Amino acid sequence: MKKIAVILGGCGTRDGSEINETVTLLLALDQHEIKYDCFAPDRNQYQVINHVSGEVVEEERNMMVEAARIVRGAITPLTEFCADNYDGLAIPGGAGIANNLFTYFTDGMQMTVLPEVRDAIVKIHEQNKPIAAMCIAPVLVANVLKDVTVTLGNDDCGPAKDVVEMGATHAPTKNGEVVSDLKNKIFTTPCFMLEATLKDIYAGAYNMVESFKEAL
Amino acid sequence: MKKIAVILGGCGTRDGSEINETVTLLLALDQHEIKYDCFAPDRNQYQVINHVSGEVVEEERNMMVEAARIVRGAITPLTEFCADNYDGLAIPGGAGIANNLFTYFTDGMQMTVLPEVRDAIVKIHEQNKPIAAMCIAPVLVANVLKDVTVTLGNDDCGPAKDVVEMGATHAPTKNGEVVSDLKNKIFTTPCFMLEATLKDIYAGAYNMVESFKEAL
Repeated sequence: MKKIAVILGGCGTRDGSEINETVTLLLALDQHEIKYDCFAPDRNQYQVINHVSGEVVEEERNMMVEAARIVRGAITPLTEFCADNYDGLAIPGGAGIANNLFTYFTDGMQMTVLPEVRDAIVKIHEQNKPIAAMCIAPVLVANVLKDVTVTLGNDDCGPAKDVVEMGATHAPTKNGEVVSDLKNKIFTTPCFMLEATLKDIYAGAYNMVESFKEAL
Repeated sequence: MKKIAVILGGCGTRDGSEINETVTLLLALDQHEIKYDCFAPDRNQYQVINHVSGEVVEEERNMMVEAARIVRGAITPLTEFCADNYDGLAIPGGAGIANNLFTYFTDGMQMTVLPEVRDAIVKIHEQNKPIAAMCIAPVLVANVLKDVTVTLGNDDCGPAKDVVEMGATHAPTKNGEVVSDLKNKIFTTPCFMLEATLKDIYAGAYNMVESFKEAL
């Protein structure tokens, strides 16, 4: 049975990993009989946001400790990740990860990537193993790997234009669709980059895992 | 299109609503074309637990504000719930709700139920509308309504024995199975009361919603 690593960064769309994308990804992995271990940086989140009011609150939360809520405690610091032990990598989205795992929402094209996140992507890719990314996470993959093809939904959204400037190719998608860059083994789906309901998110996760599995 | 209310109480299995049960419930509702609004008590959680270490931390979190993380902000204080506006009610599980919504884990058979939670269950039931409950939530339904049939997985687990003492009937189930009390319109599934993986949780949620929909 194949085993992959999943990278999370908090719990909740505004300041962490998007919960619905994470759960449907893990569900689709289980349905496709792919084992997984979850990892997150053992560091504080960029910020904490009240998900009712949308306001930033004066509080500190650790992105691994919060992500553990989704996966019932089964999580490991990302610094302990070793690419040799895994057949692939998957990264759910969420606005929060574009502050926590990489700094796209604060720094735009000048974004930086946490070293342990960059290492995981680079090492899995160097070993010719596949990477799946949802929602805003393809920006991270494009920034690290440059010449890959990804989707962020519509061609005319800001992140789609930005990945092109980073050296990647953007392919537009509708709800539930997947872009498979078979040469580079990169599989992406737009999720909440588009107007979507839960069944669209699940369809995207399921279809992405189906394509990703072929490359494992 | 039918519309139901979903009651949440925090975000995370140990101190709030179980995230995977909540997401698969909402996914199954969307797949069955049932609309929903989410509600939670606008009150502090009983406690906050670090989901990596399992330790209680000295912090206060509001169960509505935390539950909002799962549903991307779309949540309303439960005191604003009006049974006339909904065709049914659903309650996902999680150890946390057995401290937050009702006090079973602290008080056992002497448990109390938050007044707005009790009111919602009683009023929906008085209007002969169906109630769905997952994992530990059937204990809450049994405590409020007494003479109903529910499942908590195995007959020999503590909560199964306790609901019998409360005046309910317990029916054992395996992963993904549903107990339908058609007379009282109560639909329950064991979820993480049993050893289970995500595809079991989704199967339980999906099958429960399928039966529940017939009674709407």
